[in-house]
Amino acid sequence: MKMLINVPETVVADALRGMAAAHPELAVDVENRVIVRGDAPVAGKVGLVSGGGSGHEPLHGGFVGPGMLSAACPGEVFTSPVPDQMVRAAAAVDSGAGVLFIVKNYTGDVLNFDMAAELAEEEGIRVAKVLVNDDVAVTDSLFTAGRRGTGATLFVEKLAGAAAEEGAPLDRVEAIARQVNENARTFGVALSAVTTPAKGSPTFDLPDGELELGIGIHGEPGRERRAMMTSREIADFAVDAVLEDLRPKGPVLALVNGMGATPLLELYGFNAEVQRVLAERNVTVARTLVGNYVTSLDMAGCSVTLCQVDGELLRLYDAPVETAGLRWGR
Amino acid sequence: MKMLINVPETVVADALRGMAAAHPELAVDVENRVIVRGDAPVAGKVGLVSGGGSGHEPLHGGFVGPGMLSAACPGEVFTSPVPDQMVRAAAAVDSGAGVLFIVKNYTGDVLNFDMAAELAEEEGIRVAKVLVNDDVAVTDSLFTAGRRGTGATLFVEKLAGAAAEEGAPLDRVEAIARQVNENARTFGVALSAVTTPAKGSPTFDLPDGELELGIGIHGEPGRERRAMMTSREIADFAVDAVLEDLRPKGPVLALVNGMGATPLLELYGFNAEVQRVLAERNVTVARTLVGNYVTSLDMAGCSVTLCQVDGELLRLYDAPVETAGLRWGR
Repeated sequence: MKMLINVPETVVADALRGMAAAHPELAVDVENRVIVRGDAPVAGKVGLVSGGGSGHEPLHGGFVGPGMLSAACPGEVFTSPVPDQMVRAAAAVDSGAGVLFIVKNYTGDVLNFDMAAELAEEEGIRVAKVLVNDDVAVTDSLFTAGRRGTGATLFVEKLAGAAAEEGAPLDRVEAIARQVNENARTFGVALSAVTTPAKGSPTFDLPDGELELGIGIHGEPGRERRAMMTSREIADFAVDAVLEDLRPKGPVLALVNGMGATPLLELYGFNAEVQRVLAERNVTVARTLVGNYVTSLDMAGCSVTLCQVDGELLRLYDAPVETAGLRWGR
Repeated sequence: MKMLINVPETVVADALRGMAAAHPELAVDVENRVIVRGDAPVAGKVGLVSGGGSGHEPLHGGFVGPGMLSAACPGEVFTSPVPDQMVRAAAAVDSGAGVLFIVKNYTGDVLNFDMAAELAEEEGIRVAKVLVNDDVAVTDSLFTAGRRGTGATLFVEKLAGAAAEEGAPLDRVEAIARQVNENARTFGVALSAVTTPAKGSPTFDLPDGELELGIGIHGEPGRERRAMMTSREIADFAVDAVLEDLRPKGPVLALVNGMGATPLLELYGFNAEVQRVLAERNVTVARTLVGNYVTSLDMAGCSVTLCQVDGELLRLYDAPVETAGLRWGR
């Protein structure tokens, strides 16, 4: 498998150097692997720190900036960052108002963020944690006890980030993050396997003419394999899998997310089918976001995340955000 | 090759329906295949219309909105739109101040935009045209007499769009577009071939362990094939190919563009190498944009576009833009 890299060992450091060059508004510590918004700490503001294995870009580093994360800690590809990164990030963004750790539910991430929270508190930083576990595909998985954290991470980071930007205190920012996670569900589909730089060949075997329903963002096994389906059939399956678990009583945010290698032309076409199913199921869509946001390197495929919102959550979604990967104004 | 589609025949219409659903701020005419900013025509403002074959998303439809294009006309995949689309677009956006057609240099596009300009002028719309031909790889190509239009299209649309938004008259907007194109050069590299929905298999054969230097955005042949190179070597080759032709006397804008299937992690790492070469060649980089902007469906690879700017062009680059594919504020 050909990659646009030098050697697998330097992939993450190289990307951080490239990010530093492209984004002077960020403070990128290449050696210690921490990406911090350039104006941190912001007086009186709660800090938001997330992180996880690399290979899901723009998540998380591309979501650092006003209105979203204060800092991100990238691990090696598909490998948890270490507690030292998280403590450094917390120290860099804490204004005294405390820090929220946003943790995707993978065993390594959970353990390391737990340890980091203890270490940060020893340094006098108040820390709260929220676990993201939105993937309805499987109960336990390759790297996870319980549900995996996937697409909903974007909504948690965006809405809690907006609350923090407005000056909400730590317990309120934490409550928003928890509410978003509890109201969000995701289902993903792979059309091709993912290749990590270290392995250099696909990490699993997905035969021609088959797709995998319920895939994770590291290529973890899903629910089942089937003969290749149409966009229409995939939308029916994915949306119904989400709606089996989330029975929205109000409007939803919809994230129609690409896994990395699926062209935007196809993603928009898929979105048309997602919207059709949602209309058929009488679900009202308040906002839709289509693009490659929570990815799995070069994997082809998509995921659908729905998040039920009330007026306050919708207001937080619409609030301005200025990051490399997600931007809008009022 | 597996794709997230229903049938090849409806790929473009499906994508337009999905775009309409996700972007209520746009007026998407699915039947006639025209994407128009929702508030068009804007009183006193010059209209900017572009278009081309589909498969390069977010170009062009994703660049419709305040500060950039007024309308876009998507053709079938890798096929020019027809004059009727362009005339409709011109009529929809013309406020009386005239319309600029931004045309990538492919034979079909050039002929059809020429015909559309005549038809629009018969309807009383003042039309100017600018040809984008920035690709230094080859002189003539599969679909082109002269140089191909590729990555610089983004800069032409952004900077001319900013000038139009500020109320510049048609001759000034045209002059800006021409100046940007004349000062911009691109070189692209493919690590894998592209697969169109209609063909369903790769449109050319690129063996394992080889890359193609100087590729076009439709998989047109480039300058040469070589054994796979490192990110560092590719950056040296691509930047030097651009600098052989463009000898910047001032700062440049840099677009480090993905062809579609190359992960953002790799693109940022590649950007680090691009910045290194530019520093070694004493070229000052004013702004850098990294991402998948001018793509070729599922092709893996990248391109580098440099555009020399003066203070005025840099100011237009920095001006606010609000589109699906490119957004920033002041």
